Amino acid sequence: MPEPIVFYDIPRKANVPSDTAWSPNTWKTRYSLNIKGLSYRTVWVEYPDIEALYKKLGVEPTDTGPTGAPFYTLPLIYDPNTKEYVSDSAAIARYLDKTYPDTPTLIPKETDALHAAFQRAFAAVFNPGNAGFSWIMMPETYVRLNPASQGYFRRTREQWFGMALEELAPRGSEKRQKHWEVVKDAFHEVAGWLQAGRQERLFFLGGETICYADIVIAAFIIWFRNTFSEDSAEWRDMLSWDGGRWGKLTEAFRKHESVDDGSPLEL
Amino acid sequence: MPEPIVFYDIPRKANVPSDTAWSPNTWKTRYSLNIKGLSYRTVWVEYPDIEALYKKLGVEPTDTGPTGAPFYTLPLIYDPNTKEYVSDSAAIARYLDKTYPDTPTLIPKETDALHAAFQRAFAAVFNPGNAGFSWIMMPETYVRLNPASQGYFRRTREQWFGMALEELAPRGSEKRQKHWEVVKDAFHEVAGWLQAGRQERLFFLGGETICYADIVIAAFIIWFRNTFSEDSAEWRDMLSWDGGRWGKLTEAFRKHESVDDGSPLEL
Repeated sequence: MPEPIVFYDIPRKANVPSDTAWSPNTWKTRYSLNIKGLSYRTVWVEYPDIEALYKKLGVEPTDTGPTGAPFYTLPLIYDPNTKEYVSDSAAIARYLDKTYPDTPTLIPKETDALHAAFQRAFAAVFNPGNAGFSWIMMPETYVRLNPASQGYFRRTREQWFGMALEELAPRGSEKRQKHWEVVKDAFHEVAGWLQAGRQERLFFLGGETICYADIVIAAFIIWFRNTFSEDSAEWRDMLSWDGGRWGKLTEAFRKHESVDDGSPLEL
Repeated sequence: MPEPIVFYDIPRKANVPSDTAWSPNTWKTRYSLNIKGLSYRTVWVEYPDIEALYKKLGVEPTDTGPTGAPFYTLPLIYDPNTKEYVSDSAAIARYLDKTYPDTPTLIPKETDALHAAFQRAFAAVFNPGNAGFSWIMMPETYVRLNPASQGYFRRTREQWFGMALEELAPRGSEKRQKHWEVVKDAFHEVAGWLQAGRQERLFFLGGETICYADIVIAAFIIWFRNTFSEDSAEWRDMLSWDGGRWGKLTEAFRKHESVDDGSPLEL
């Protein structure tokens, strides 16, 4: 019986533990772990502590940012069975596929390069230039974070976008409407990929097999759903898109959405 | 023995038939037909005749352009064995896979949706916004077309780009250098996809299997190679990129580059 994997995730304000997880990037890993049925426990890390966590553990930064500065991100996992740390949700999926070959495969080897291209395509449609999903989601996410993360989140995101969070997509503004159309078009384009060759597919590889590309889509949908809540006009709007496809995807993923209580990070 | 497929392609100035084919989009189909070993004969169609050809044959336009106007493009094939017309190189690849299941598969069904995402990613990296591959290739292509196609090509492309062909990337200009960097970065990004999961691959699906994504890359490379010629500084530059990867790809594709004499279109 393998020891539980340690999964570092970012919390938000929540009344119940199951509502604590929100980040699309860490959801990719939570879905991966849940789909594989691997045992894990969550450690909740506030934004300003991510860098300190990496340094304490002696783990290399995930990436370097545009300025060449190291970039420390979650998800990060520690697998006590192999004593390995792995960050970046796609790298984690590949690591888990390799290390636990008896669990469902998320990135079949022969689709490895196509999956990499998928990630590029996904970025291109969801945030094409100066409009998109992030514009709407950043300010909505900010207000739901714990105070411990809010200052860091505001500072870094306002630097990326070059404006105050409140200016990105004010509710009721034409600007927000424009971003909303980009989001709708982005989902519509993904729906088109899933219908390639005039075949209807709920999942990328067809049939009942969930792969990493599906997880990426589902992670963005749960971010959206958990942000606006299931009785919001936004969620009802999304349910009406693309023949109800995204509601069906959500239903297929619900059984993979368990969130453990976890414990706060102790530095 | 099936009857030869009719393959409508766009010619350019050439001293030998094998140098007549140049268009990356029709090369995707020529590679597809050659790799599958299907018998076909080329009909050479100058740009201004493409629309008339579709109308004469009673074939629906490939697509609608941004203004909603019908968009008539090559490649187009006519398969006398099924009496079907098919346009768009990806649709043709899927049609050939389905109709000739004993030939090498180009888009395995389970990669259909990922292939669609690949095409979006490819577009995003090769022509990201206001710079890229097309800026360099359009004027270089123009001078190599037959006079019968040049007027049409200039008019439509200058409308798309909003400037004279000669202004897109003048030789020796800083502008051209910038476009060149975009091209180099684009190939470098594709090289990154091919190395996903820290595995070295020449082809997308790994191993020796050529799939449609590889054909898309090879079609752009042959456009480049046939445009600048193999003793140009441009081609030697490309051979030096990404550890010589693109030269290796070219060598792997050479055996699939036969071009028949074909015959000119008679309307």
